[in-house]
This record gives sequence, C-alpha cells and structure tokens, in this order.
Amino acid sequence: MATVAVDAMGGDNAPMEIVHGGIDAAANGHEVVFVGDEAQLAPILEAAGVGIPVVHASEAIGMSDDPALAIREKRDASISVAARLVKTGDADAVVSAGSTGAALTAAVFTLGRLKGVSRPAIASYFPSGSVVLDMGANLSCRARDLAQFAVMGAALARTHDGLDRVTVGLLNIGSEPGKGRVLEREAHDLMGALPGIDFIGNVEGTDLAQAKANVIVCDGYTGNIMLKTAEGTARLVFNLFLEAVAVPDYTEAVQTLAPALMQLRERLNPERAGGAHLLGVKGVVVVTHGSSTRLSISTAVATAADAVAGGLPDLIAAGLAESAGVL
Amino acid sequence: MATVAVDAMGGDNAPMEIVHGGIDAAANGHEVVFVGDEAQLAPILEAAGVGIPVVHASEAIGMSDDPALAIREKRDASISVAARLVKTGDADAVVSAGSTGAALTAAVFTLGRLKGVSRPAIASYFPSGSVVLDMGANLSCRARDLAQFAVMGAALARTHDGLDRVTVGLLNIGSEPGKGRVLEREAHDLMGALPGIDFIGNVEGTDLAQAKANVIVCDGYTGNIMLKTAEGTARLVFNLFLEAVAVPDYTEAVQTLAPALMQLRERLNPERAGGAHLLGVKGVVVVTHGSSTRLSISTAVATAADAVAGGLPDLIAAGLAESAGVL
Repeated sequence: MATVAVDAMGGDNAPMEIVHGGIDAAANGHEVVFVGDEAQLAPILEAAGVGIPVVHASEAIGMSDDPALAIREKRDASISVAARLVKTGDADAVVSAGSTGAALTAAVFTLGRLKGVSRPAIASYFPSGSVVLDMGANLSCRARDLAQFAVMGAALARTHDGLDRVTVGLLNIGSEPGKGRVLEREAHDLMGALPGIDFIGNVEGTDLAQAKANVIVCDGYTGNIMLKTAEGTARLVFNLFLEAVAVPDYTEAVQTLAPALMQLRERLNPERAGGAHLLGVKGVVVVTHGSSTRLSISTAVATAADAVAGGLPDLIAAGLAESAGVL
Repeated sequence: MATVAVDAMGGDNAPMEIVHGGIDAAANGHEVVFVGDEAQLAPILEAAGVGIPVVHASEAIGMSDDPALAIREKRDASISVAARLVKTGDADAVVSAGSTGAALTAAVFTLGRLKGVSRPAIASYFPSGSVVLDMGANLSCRARDLAQFAVMGAALARTHDGLDRVTVGLLNIGSEPGKGRVLEREAHDLMGALPGIDFIGNVEGTDLAQAKANVIVCDGYTGNIMLKTAEGTARLVFNLFLEAVAVPDYTEAVQTLAPALMQLRERLNPERAGGAHLLGVKGVVVVTHGSSTRLSISTAVATAADAVAGGLPDLIAAGLAESAGVL
C-alpha cells in the first residue's frame, strides 16, 4: 500500500487541521506519515490517541517566504523532508497545504523532473469534471509546454478517472482553429499531432459547464485566473440566490431545499476537489489550498494514494516517450 | 437627444430581433435609426406599424468573415454605414450585434482613435457590477496599454455608474504587488502613478463575487477567457442546482421559489448587461452578443444613449490628456 507523507507544517491551519486530516485518512485505511516539528505533533497525536509515525523536520516554509530561496536555505523544511522520503523510497507521495511554489521547488529539486519534461505543471479538477492545467506553475509558456501539459493531463485522467480514451481541449477565445495568440495557434498544431490523445481542438470558458473535454490545457497565468474566476462566480451566484430568496414568503421553501443546497455547495467546494497534482516530477505530489481543513487533507491523501496505485509518474513518462517525435 | 444607429443586419437573429429591439427602444423614448437592407427592413417596420427611419446599406458582414478584409471590401456594409452616420453627425452612437471584430475595425477605420489611444478596447460589465476590459480586442498587450485601459474604463464607470471616485484593480494571480508576469508587474507600477483614478492594486478572479473594484483591467485574451468562464460557471451552478432539486420531495418548494429563480437567472443573463463598449474611438459604439434578442438590443440602445449623454468619448480623451505624463 502507498505511504503518503503529509507535510504537517504547511497551510494556514497547520498543524492542527492537517494532522486531523491525516488521522481521518489513516482511519479510512491509508498509510500516513507526518513530517514536521515532533514537539508540536506528538501532543496532537497523543490527544487523538492514534499511533501514526512522525518524521521530524525542524523548519517550516511560510506562505510569504520566497519559495526558491526558502527551499535552498531551509534544508530541514518539512516539505523538503517529505520530498526526500519519496526520494529514498520511505514514502510514495507527498501531500502539502503549504506554499505551492515551495512544494514545486522542493519536488523539482529533490525528486527531479521526469525524462522529457521541460516544465512541471499544476493540474486541478473543475466541478464539471475536467482536469485543467497549468494552474500557475508556469505563467508564460511555449507551445511545446502546452503540448506536454496535454500528455501529462491525459495520464492523470487515465489514472484518476479510469479513462482509456482521453479527450483534450486547448483553452482559447473561440472554437475555430486559428483563434488566439501565436501561442495557441502553434499549440493547436502540435497537439493535433500528438499520438495517444484525442485532441478535440479549441474549447472556451463557457464549455466548463459541461466538461466538453476530459483535459483542458492552458498557460499557468490563464489557468490560475480561470480557476479563481470560477470560484468567484460560483460564490456570486450563491450570494445572489440567497439575496433573491431573503423574503418571508420564501423562508419555508428555502428550508425545505436546504439539504439540496448544502449538497450543491459541497459539490462546488474547492476543498472537496482533493487537491492539485504537480505533474512532471519523479513522484506523486498533491497540493491543497492554503486554507485547507481536515476534509481537504484527507481527500488529498486518498487522491495521492490513487495516483500512486495508478502509476501516474510512469504513465506520464510513457506518454512523453510516445510523443517524443512531436515534442 | 442622442440618435442611435442600429446595425439591423448584424447578429444571428438579424434582422427580425434586431429591428424589434430597436422598436422597443424607440417605444421607451430613444431616437433610433436602422441601418441595413431597406427591402428586408421596410416590411418588418410596416408590419409593426411604426415609422422609424432606415438608412439603406446594400451589404452585411457575417460572423465568419475576416473582419479587416470584410470592412475593406464591403464598403457598403451595414456596420460601416452606421459608423459613417456617426462620423457625419447624423447619429451619435452605433449599436451592433454583428461581428465584434468588424465593429471594431469599422469604428477605428471610420471614426478614428481618440488622441493618445494606442489600442481601443472592449469593456463589459460583470454581474457583480465591475466593468472589465479588455475583453478581446487586444490579445497581447503592453503595460502601457493596460494603463490606458484603466483610464478609459474609469471614464466609462463615471458616465455609466455616475461615480466620482473610481476604484481600479489590475487582474492578477495574487493580491500582493510583484505577482504575475512581466506585463502585470510593469502595469502595476504604471497604474499606481496614474492621476485621477484610485488604483487599489491587484485583484483576483475570486474578487468578482463582490465587485472589489469598479474597473478591472487585463489583457484581451485573459478578459475573454474570464468572461466566458464566468458564464460557463454560472450555467454550471444553475444546472447542478436543478439536478440537486429534481426529486419529488422538492417539487413544491422549487415551484414556490420559481419567481426568485427567474429573477436570479435574469440578473445573470448576459443579454441584460446592455452590451460591451468599444472604448478609445471617436464615438460611442456598443456591441452585443451575436445571439442577441430584442431585449439585448433595446438595453444596448439605452446604454449607448446614456454614454452619449454622459460625454463618454470626451471624458476618455480628458482622462488620457491628464495622464499623458505617465502614459
């Protein structure tokens, strides 16, 4: 069974919520090891009455630290120690709610890139069911990077969704070929030539409503804007709904619908998504929101364990090898 | 009173819906002139029993035509004739549901750019109340362009929302200064130096939920992706809600809430937004969705008339003149 190293010091709610998320995951049958300050973690575990191993790390990286600098200077940072556990084979995956930049740097620095990967990318699931990458690891990209993202995202869709035939779309401002910037026009040509994926051409933001493609590829600046726009819009629609029904005539009907509304809110909850994958490194690394609660951590551990079981890094390497002629 | 030239041949539902939208606007007290094929328009107006003037245009530009080429070759295209009416002073504004690219080209070609404008931009209102630009006129931008967009968007917020003090945000992947690509980092510095606007720094997609800034500035590729992502997400949330309540236990409550749900859908309806402004040209030009119905056309006519009454082009020119030292 996969052992998941949980960075207990990362995120706004560390270590308490993180440890409880890991405890939940262990209770669900996952193998967990915590990485962090033993003096802080031991009392939490003791109070919870569980015996989950802790690997001590004397340092932690904050959200405001410069990722590259912090990884270099804090050799004993929890995220780096967690990555080293995967490197040495003592763990199979890393889960962190800490700085995404630090996790990415630690992963590239400690685990290294898979053969053929020029730029690792961050892949997230949207509520509609599409996986979108890059979500912000690479703000500016070349067409070749986008084509690599297509291959990496397809490998994730294979392991995560059990898909055999994966459809991939290129995010663009129109559906017709020839739309977009030079980047999109070049990427369109490259992606059309990739073996092993089913390239469906350009997709638009409006297509997020119905998961037109299993995988949607874009540069990291655009992906990050898109993810946050979707979050902001979902919240806006909810707020406007609550505003529209905030009259006495509707009180009873709203109470009746409360379970369905809770279910909907839950479905749209980014915490439920199970975190984002860092793809392209030699190992499974899942990062979650800085504001992660125990639910997001336990979901992320399950996500990471699934990816290990599905052999995600090997699948990515195989996909890139198969596409070497195009990339 | 402002005379609005309505391009009767533009959009998927032309001329029927467009003409009826113009008739509605006229019934609401606006001065309208239709531009298009007299042979097609006269029977519609006759059937409606209204006497609204028509200026004949023998050609029309389709959605799939290359905008620049079509404007050059079809000298008598309805959108070009409409722009010439503004140029000659026979009309004060143009409304079109046709190709946005063609409207933009016609506006720049016929009306010309305002002094100091390097790139006209498309500005749209989001349901939260922020105006966002550019929405796709300029896929790749320089920092100076974004700073100009800030000035132009602020002028629109002044006329459209009657604001005196306008807050402007720069769309970015994080709220801290120094975030983003070179483009955003440079634009951040320039925008901070602009006189006459209240620059609040970086804003994120999540901020769309509460209109953190009156004006949000971004490059046209990003703006277009963001607009469509918001549309797609709103539709997704609606669909998921309908799915969640599609059980007999909820039928009655949903029926009770129907008026509130219709009101919410209406509020999120892009048709309601009144169209997008082409800013930076010597005149008022409002474009609407290709799928515009009579409602969006009548709203757009009102929007255009408001902008004329508020002296939008003059306000933009004054803002740019005031900012000349920075831009």
